[in-house]
Amino acid sequence: MQANRFRNNKKKIINDPIYGFISIPDEFIFDVIEHPYVQRLRRISQLGLSHLVYPGAVHTRFQHVIGAMHLMGKAVSVLQKKGHEITDREKRAVLLAILLHDIGHGPFSHALEFDIVKSVSHEDISAYFIKSLEKTFGSDLELALTIFEDKYNKPFLHQLVSSQLDMDRLDYLNRDSFFSGVSEGTIGSDRLIEMLQVREGQLVIEEKGIYSVEKFIVARRLMYWQVYLHKTVVSAEYMLIYALRRAKSLLRNGHEVFASPALSFFLKKDVSHEDFGDADTVLENFAALDDYDILQSLKVWSRNTDATLGFLSSSIVNRRLFKIEISKKPFSLAKIKGVKDQLLKSGNFSGMDLDYLVFSDKLMNKAYNQKFQNINLLMKSGEIVDLSEASDNLNISALARPVEKYFLCYPR
Amino acid sequence: MQANRFRNNKKKIINDPIYGFISIPDEFIFDVIEHPYVQRLRRISQLGLSHLVYPGAVHTRFQHVIGAMHLMGKAVSVLQKKGHEITDREKRAVLLAILLHDIGHGPFSHALEFDIVKSVSHEDISAYFIKSLEKTFGSDLELALTIFEDKYNKPFLHQLVSSQLDMDRLDYLNRDSFFSGVSEGTIGSDRLIEMLQVREGQLVIEEKGIYSVEKFIVARRLMYWQVYLHKTVVSAEYMLIYALRRAKSLLRNGHEVFASPALSFFLKKDVSHEDFGDADTVLENFAALDDYDILQSLKVWSRNTDATLGFLSSSIVNRRLFKIEISKKPFSLAKIKGVKDQLLKSGNFSGMDLDYLVFSDKLMNKAYNQKFQNINLLMKSGEIVDLSEASDNLNISALARPVEKYFLCYPR
Amino acid sequence: MQANRFRNNKKKIINDPIYGFISIPDEFIFDVIEHPYVQRLRRISQLGLSHLVYPGAVHTRFQHVIGAMHLMGKAVSVLQKKGHEITDREKRAVLLAILLHDIGHGPFSHALEFDIVKSVSHEDISAYFIKSLEKTFGSDLELALTIFEDKYNKPFLHQLVSSQLDMDRLDYLNRDSFFSGVSEGTIGSDRLIEMLQVREGQLVIEEKGIYSVEKFIVARRLMYWQVYLHKTVVSAEYMLIYALRRAKSLLRNGHEVFASPALSFFLKKDVSHEDFGDADTVLENFAALDDYDILQSLKVWSRNTDATLGFLSSSIVNRRLFKIEISKKPFSLAKIKGVKDQLLKSGNFSGMDLDYLVFSDKLMNKAYNQKFQNINLLMKSGEIVDLSEASDNLNISALARPVEKYFLCYPR
Amino acid sequence: MQANRFRNNKKKIINDPIYGFISIPDEFIFDVIEHPYVQRLRRISQLGLSHLVYPGAVHTRFQHVIGAMHLMGKAVSVLQKKGHEITDREKRAVLLAILLHDIGHGPFSHALEFDIVKSVSHEDISAYFIKSLEKTFGSDLELALTIFEDKYNKPFLHQLVSSQLDMDRLDYLNRDSFFSGVSEGTIGSDRLIEMLQVREGQLVIEEKGIYSVEKFIVARRLMYWQVYLHKTVVSAEYMLIYALRRAKSLLRNGHEVFASPALSFFLKKDVSHEDFGDADTVLENFAALDDYDILQSLKVWSRNTDATLGFLSSSIVNRRLFKIEISKKPFSLAKIKGVKDQLLKSGNFSGMDLDYLVFSDKLMNKAYNQKFQNINLLMKSGEIVDLSEASDNLNISALARPVEKYFLCYPR
Repeated sequence: MQANRFRNNKKKIINDPIYGFISIPDEFIFDVIEHPYVQRLRRISQLGLSHLVYPGAVHTRFQHVIGAMHLMGKAVSVLQKKGHEITDREKRAVLLAILLHDIGHGPFSHALEFDIVKSVSHEDISAYFIKSLEKTFGSDLELALTIFEDKYNKPFLHQLVSSQLDMDRLDYLNRDSFFSGVSEGTIGSDRLIEMLQVREGQLVIEEKGIYSVEKFIVARRLMYWQVYLHKTVVSAEYMLIYALRRAKSLLRNGHEVFASPALSFFLKKDVSHEDFGDADTVLENFAALDDYDILQSLKVWSRNTDATLGFLSSSIVNRRLFKIEISKKPFSLAKIKGVKDQLLKSGNFSGMDLDYLVFSDKLMNKAYNQKFQNINLLMKSGEIVDLSEASDNLNISALARPVEKYFLCYPR
Repeated sequence: MQANRFRNNKKKIINDPIYGFISIPDEFIFDVIEHPYVQRLRRISQLGLSHLVYPGAVHTRFQHVIGAMHLMGKAVSVLQKKGHEITDREKRAVLLAILLHDIGHGPFSHALEFDIVKSVSHEDISAYFIKSLEKTFGSDLELALTIFEDKYNKPFLHQLVSSQLDMDRLDYLNRDSFFSGVSEGTIGSDRLIEMLQVREGQLVIEEKGIYSVEKFIVARRLMYWQVYLHKTVVSAEYMLIYALRRAKSLLRNGHEVFASPALSFFLKKDVSHEDFGDADTVLENFAALDDYDILQSLKVWSRNTDATLGFLSSSIVNRRLFKIEISKKPFSLAKIKGVKDQLLKSGNFSGMDLDYLVFSDKLMNKAYNQKFQNINLLMKSGEIVDLSEASDNLNISALARPVEKYFLCYPR
Repeated sequence: MQANRFRNNKKKIINDPIYGFISIPDEFIFDVIEHPYVQRLRRISQLGLSHLVYPGAVHTRFQHVIGAMHLMGKAVSVLQKKGHEITDREKRAVLLAILLHDIGHGPFSHALEFDIVKSVSHEDISAYFIKSLEKTFGSDLELALTIFEDKYNKPFLHQLVSSQLDMDRLDYLNRDSFFSGVSEGTIGSDRLIEMLQVREGQLVIEEKGIYSVEKFIVARRLMYWQVYLHKTVVSAEYMLIYALRRAKSLLRNGHEVFASPALSFFLKKDVSHEDFGDADTVLENFAALDDYDILQSLKVWSRNTDATLGFLSSSIVNRRLFKIEISKKPFSLAKIKGVKDQLLKSGNFSGMDLDYLVFSDKLMNKAYNQKFQNINLLMKSGEIVDLSEASDNLNISALARPVEKYFLCYPR
Repeated sequence: MQANRFRNNKKKIINDPIYGFISIPDEFIFDVIEHPYVQRLRRISQLGLSHLVYPGAVHTRFQHVIGAMHLMGKAVSVLQKKGHEITDREKRAVLLAILLHDIGHGPFSHALEFDIVKSVSHEDISAYFIKSLEKTFGSDLELALTIFEDKYNKPFLHQLVSSQLDMDRLDYLNRDSFFSGVSEGTIGSDRLIEMLQVREGQLVIEEKGIYSVEKFIVARRLMYWQVYLHKTVVSAEYMLIYALRRAKSLLRNGHEVFASPALSFFLKKDVSHEDFGDADTVLENFAALDDYDILQSLKVWSRNTDATLGFLSSSIVNRRLFKIEISKKPFSLAKIKGVKDQLLKSGNFSGMDLDYLVFSDKLMNKAYNQKFQNINLLMKSGEIVDLSEASDNLNISALARPVEKYFLCYPR
């Protein structure tokens, strides 16, 4: 019956502006895609508020995971052709792993990851979702989870899902570049995939792909500073963080604040890692939360009786974004106080809590903020060499160091 | 000061994935773009629920009006180079007219135009918005409105905003084609614009552009049936119409139905053309309404105690779209009754009102549903000839006839 | 050993600006591609002198046949997935058939087909080449030829190579459109290929592909008049025809005319269909002939002592193209004589033979000049319907009629 | 009259696959483009034999100079908008300078620059051509030459024509990337041009363009190793060098060797820098020389009675390219002798001169082989900083060092 349903269904093929036609590999995966947890990604934009700077960048996480799955199919083919065994079951599992790798993202997760759900990473939530889907779809998802969590005995499969050169990044760089119109971010995903190899169970890149890898790293850095951490985007995202903090604070102090049931749940209650495991309600409420809850609330909050919340919210909604200053050093308390004093003097912010309108923080090129994973090159000689040693042109150690900047944001 | 602000602002240039860099022509227009009425278009998607079939098609009306303004700048240059006088003031006005031509669109207006605001067209609402903006921005907008309403003594300026070959269509065909990934919809906007001419105050196309015009017409028709009226999209849009009707009916009968203030306003009260003119509140509430109100409500309604509303809403949200049959003839009452009986027998719809779950209507290629405007060709001989006479290959009279189809929609 | 050679060779993948990476399906086909007969297509431009109008249009027939082979691979996969048996041997043969379908093209064959080799079509010469390759590569090419000549018992295989919707056209429309920059010629080859089906051994298109087919037909017509038969291109190509006729006439009358050995062979001797079969030298000389022989000769002829040949040749080389008039009716002898008289009077053409400088001929949209083949649609009902009946919008019968125009060409 | 001719001519607009429509700025420039010296660039491919690896890379120098002129027009507009005076006369001159900057290129000049014309660089020949055109077109070309030779008092105009970030490079990187299909080479020319500024007469880049500049440098390096110096391309180009050397040697020793008059001129006689200045015949013969002379000759030489020339020529024509080894160190004489011995032993090369079949040389990333010019950044503070100091991520000093590799080439 399942099979029948697939056979009759016309949407085995998805039209993608970047790759053209994407075929859904089989019915089982088709059914997983149809699950509300995956469909929910249609309502979560990939780049949060970046579209306030790049109006085209309104693409969703749904498109991204479908695209990443498409690239994964190609990568598996390439490795199989090169003689590496990947069974049908493993192939399906690694396709599912990449399809579901972002399922734990909440709305505006760059901004809200640590506000909506305190200290639970989206990867952890993805794992909870996959476990929950296992109940419906059975053991094929178990293997997907094993790969996702890097517990499988073919580490390269995990590395295709999550590493410096995974299908996630290959897709999102191309996709974010395409939709934002920042064409310089384009990478040669086809070429990079063709250069994939496996040695001792690890994913490596053939030597002749070195220029493409260098290009990939530079394109990624460009996208970070030009798009993901564009200062206007940072301003907007931090305004959103402070609006939500204000709403949370008001709500917990008995003030009336409009919110959808799902948003209300997370504003009222801090949830921990354990809460996700203990109660289905946490996961269910998280599953019900997306961009629409946040933006709808901001619109209503624009008219809230709390002047601070009203000002913050309407400023985001109508794109009256705060001024942002960037510096390589932290801003002094004196400087911050100076800004607040000036705002007070202007008389435009009476009745508002300036701690929510003037804020400073550290900005990091997060890509490198984690323990730096190597990209290994397979030389023609058979030797495995770290990219940083093979490339005499890119200053890899400089790239590896996280770049830290500081910002100070306040109303114009 | 205004000038200063512009000079300091980095966003004089907008990055567009289709045209590359778009320059905002001057500070005045920049300020109009910054107005909340225009910024609101960022929250109204161009193609409504089409993204359920073409996941890339999530672009907004904001991008479209910026793109159409860009093309208008090119068209004005071409006509000026060909010796037609367009003063600086007229140029600004026609740029504003195209920028604001879609400002009266509500959310999902293909679906909801006649449900949210009964019998007030989006063009009329655009005019109300432009009049309101006149209060802030002064008389330059008056001229824009005069052109928009085709009351100016250079009709070709209006025709650049609204006619068979206006900048609106040139942009939206390219844009919808680009984002949906249906590359066949691509048209040669550059070439068409180069071929523009004016004769006796009317916009015409030079003869040698005839193949591009034919191509344009065929591409438009393709986009209609393949994207705008794709049967799965129609199913989704009509489900949305019926969900809103159900919510409205429940609300007016005292049932509790979640809604944002703005949506609540329109669900509770039928507004007429005059209401827009009489009271600012109508326009203000309309300005506060966008895609987020609708989708946020659908999500909450998924759990409404009314089974019909709950079923319709969750079916849209989770993309469990109804089956749709298409026919060249109307569906008989017997056929419709048969479908209802079968649903009843299945036992899955007890407690639901089938009149909201089984619906049939006429589907029209609306592009041609209006009085058909000619496209006039300027022959090398100097003669003006209607496209339908100049083209011996396209059956223009057949294209001019609106194509009517009928559909019947019901749960699987 | 063969296998070894392939395994070591890095060029199993060809980089194509349109499709990205193209994989050569197997070593056998790789070896055929390496044969000088196929490599020769690198020296024959796809669009002859069209690059004088569209400077980007310098792509070669080599790229085209590789691209068409790539599309054929996709088409075979689609049909196999839909349950139609295509054996490995048939697959290789149909790939070879499309790879070799244009191998009989000579240089500027649009212009020279009936001058260089009198009354032998390029299809016939392709067949001679394939037969010759059979001696080297064996029986796999025999099957390719059987399919190419439509003598195989699965007619759809031939139709993939040569019919109204074959892989040849799908590739060349996209490719010519891409390189000329006439983006309106782009067609949805991916979609069209997905819609292919087979019924009773014949290639058909699924009903829902109708808009793509209509779009394909209109795009083709646009490319014909905008690129292939662009009047400036026609002028250049006929100038080339007359230059070669002049050279031939001079040579046969004992005048000294520079020419490469291969060109010299064909200028001195008229070859017939039989000559190709009888003597290897004809085929060998034809294989040695390409764009470089023609253009090199024109450059040298620019300084020939015969004023007519010199003027014609230098006019092509330096792009001083003749004026061309187009008319729906034939030009009268009086009109032609009038033009000649005026040229004589100008005194600029003394010592030249005006019969080679003033010429008139019929211009045909050759695509439809052959017996019109149907495009058959497979309706959802299972019925097979001719496109002209299924499409109520395109005037197919008008499109089927060859469009005849007349031109008159002469020096400015 | 001139004006008239322009007004009536339809080709004021050139269709470019990369930039769309390119307008020829005025009639004077139009007439220069029509001159045979510029039209000749249609017969000189931009990338020589690279198309043997990237079949799409058959674009010509003509397209490139038109594209570079188009970018120059944009750059001039940007600088004018930023308040820098560029008069109409200077604008025309700098447009002409970029249009003519490559006019001195001969066929396959990467390979043949130092063989066809000993020790005369293509820049010098360009200057001779421009001086010659001055006789026809007058003093506007004088200013173009002054800018081209960096003798004008606004150095930034020269730098737009020739510097690390000139319009030449911006166009050729995009163009070579587009046609070869190596999409990773794409650069953000629009963004880079928007970031141009002038300080103290020098061209600089605004600070916020730093990521685009880094990206540009990495893309260029990628194109060098992946396309321009691709080892198979190097093999082909050196085979061509040795074929011509062999032909030259044979000819000078009285052996009969086919050649067009222009090629014959340069094979028979070594021309020096002075010869270009002294005699028009040198320039005229150079103007008559293009890709067609070389390839046509190779084809005829394939059957030359000299086995060495025949083997080299047919190997290029039929793409039987020599094996190439790359090393960071020079190849030892012993190694080279070893290769020759093996070839001798094989018996396949009897009667051939192995000095023409086995060759080794140094390979340089020529881009950096010249005195390294700085790219200067204009910081927000107003300071001018060298890119190598501003970028803490790219190892600019490593990039500045020319990369030297060695190769050894011989028949398989």
